[in-house]
Amino acid sequence: MSQDADARTEGDLTKTGMALKHDRTWDYELDRIVEAVEERDASTVGLQFPEGLKRRGPAVADDLRELLPEDVQVMISGQPCYGACDLDTYMMRRTDVFVHFGHSPMKESEKILYVPLFSNVEVEPIMEESLAELADPDEDPDVGLVTTAQHMNKFDEMRAWLEERGYTVHTRRGDERLTHEGQVLGCNYASADVDADQVLYVGGGKFHPLGLAMEHPEKKVVIADPVNNVVTVADTEKFLKQRYGAVHRAMDAETFGVVFCTKIGQGRWDVAQEIVQNNENAYLITMDEVTPDRLTNFGMDAYVNTGCPRITTDDGPQFKQPMLTPGEYEIAIGERPLDSLSFDTFHGTW
Amino acid sequence: MSQDADARTEGDLTKTGMALKHDRTWDYELDRIVEAVEERDASTVGLQFPEGLKRRGPAVADDLRELLPEDVQVMISGQPCYGACDLDTYMMRRTDVFVHFGHSPMKESEKILYVPLFSNVEVEPIMEESLAELADPDEDPDVGLVTTAQHMNKFDEMRAWLEERGYTVHTRRGDERLTHEGQVLGCNYASADVDADQVLYVGGGKFHPLGLAMEHPEKKVVIADPVNNVVTVADTEKFLKQRYGAVHRAMDAETFGVVFCTKIGQGRWDVAQEIVQNNENAYLITMDEVTPDRLTNFGMDAYVNTGCPRITTDDGPQFKQPMLTPGEYEIAIGERPLDSLSFDTFHGTW
Repeated sequence: MSQDADARTEGDLTKTGMALKHDRTWDYELDRIVEAVEERDASTVGLQFPEGLKRRGPAVADDLRELLPEDVQVMISGQPCYGACDLDTYMMRRTDVFVHFGHSPMKESEKILYVPLFSNVEVEPIMEESLAELADPDEDPDVGLVTTAQHMNKFDEMRAWLEERGYTVHTRRGDERLTHEGQVLGCNYASADVDADQVLYVGGGKFHPLGLAMEHPEKKVVIADPVNNVVTVADTEKFLKQRYGAVHRAMDAETFGVVFCTKIGQGRWDVAQEIVQNNENAYLITMDEVTPDRLTNFGMDAYVNTGCPRITTDDGPQFKQPMLTPGEYEIAIGERPLDSLSFDTFHGTW
Repeated sequence: MSQDADARTEGDLTKTGMALKHDRTWDYELDRIVEAVEERDASTVGLQFPEGLKRRGPAVADDLRELLPEDVQVMISGQPCYGACDLDTYMMRRTDVFVHFGHSPMKESEKILYVPLFSNVEVEPIMEESLAELADPDEDPDVGLVTTAQHMNKFDEMRAWLEERGYTVHTRRGDERLTHEGQVLGCNYASADVDADQVLYVGGGKFHPLGLAMEHPEKKVVIADPVNNVVTVADTEKFLKQRYGAVHRAMDAETFGVVFCTKIGQGRWDVAQEIVQNNENAYLITMDEVTPDRLTNFGMDAYVNTGCPRITTDDGPQFKQPMLTPGEYEIAIGERPLDSLSFDTFHGTW
């Protein structure tokens, strides 16, 4: 299926990893929601969408209200949402049915109805183009294969397509933070830890494959993007320069603000604890959204973010003071050598 | 005591109503915190400061750590904080001692240690200057007197000073949202509901007296600002024009996003409910921080904010779509006449 230009632009949602064609073919699984309302005799339903799908929220609420008894209250979360790690726990605790759209479950719970929203975009045309960047199977048949939650419905098709062309496809599920075989998250690329020097990422945007390439710098990461209809090779040079720059600037820091993120799936308490317990000039600061404005107020020389790694790597340059990952902090204070710099991976759930 | 120029600029914290001279004379009541830690055998202490005092957080944490046993963990809230209505409930639930600095109690609770932080600035010199704007006591002796939490320690002195000069000073406590006689909040001016045509506000910044003048348009509001050392008369014209502009633009709106604020002291559930139950094109959206970015995502024609009234009046122009108070919404949909437009007051606690 060809994509028109408008849909491509609209669908490039780098922050969320969602790259969605905004048409009427998304399956919001309203029947499943209605069923849950009936089963629980629910009087309130909460809907949470990732940033790029929030605009669809009111229409989904309309459709749902038509199907539900009139006295059932439907509400929409206005909290930012950047992943299954980022549940609106306020809404979750206060609604009878809480629906989280657009991400696969990080952890199953009776409190949460996950609606994954699979993309209907065809992947084979762009995979055909990606062959130009992959090694010829006669020379190197081994290829890793990864994708994101919303293309998971085509994963078997992707694998079969590569195997038909002579490749040996290496996949794995990764750790417990990942729901599916071959799935990557912005903060976790354990599924790409396979015995292959090249990895094919099939999915929208560069957010995920850039993380993958930072985490696995020894691998060639080929991006087959069926949403924007382009094939590229992940290039992490700009990001790495920024990371080294931040570490160097933080080497002069005397005071450190250590951020513990209070979002349900973004907290690393032990990591934050270890830093503040071993540095009397480090201060533990707790917050949900980690933004430059919130940190600037504290006037520290540098900050360490133990929450979402992508805030550090992707938003890092927006912070007025150096913003480090926990590993980069160890380099900045001289506990680890500079060449140990690596991508900050988030493991586990909550 | 005279204020130097730096302190004045630094201390003008319009958002929080805090207008503080950043010197070492603030009394953070550390002894009271240490006592609470001992009494409760606490292992964690959470500190929450208003925006303008966050920079003092690390130094307060240092001083506190020196007084506390080494194994007591001190942490600082990085959440925005704009009043006693805006407690970091995440931190409150997860620390043994939770200290909220810079606001008077909106509601007493064993869970919360309030440290009010009274200003040490002298008020009499600026009150002397304010006489030029007040009616001569021979012509109109009646004057209302109000101030903010951080000048409350001088309230009796202010009253006596006016009485010595022949004024009849009218004060009241207001409703349960207000802790003290004569106290105003950014969202509540019930303490100025007195039998006087003029009200003297003694305190820093214009944030509070502008709200007061909007709430009581029939009264002359004289501002005696001892922090910035100026006397002015509150002028609400700019604000009122903006409010009328927003209401007019919202008259064409078909869809309304109705914001319910999840902050502990900023929620008006019944108000939000009434709107969405009577308008099928109104959608209930829940969030803590109400910001332009968060709302724009939903693509509504207009928004109604049932949370903090000051976000509507003071930040209103920053929102891309019209942002209304609940009362303004009723005008926009034709249920009330345009001349009923009034300031949105927040009553009650939680």
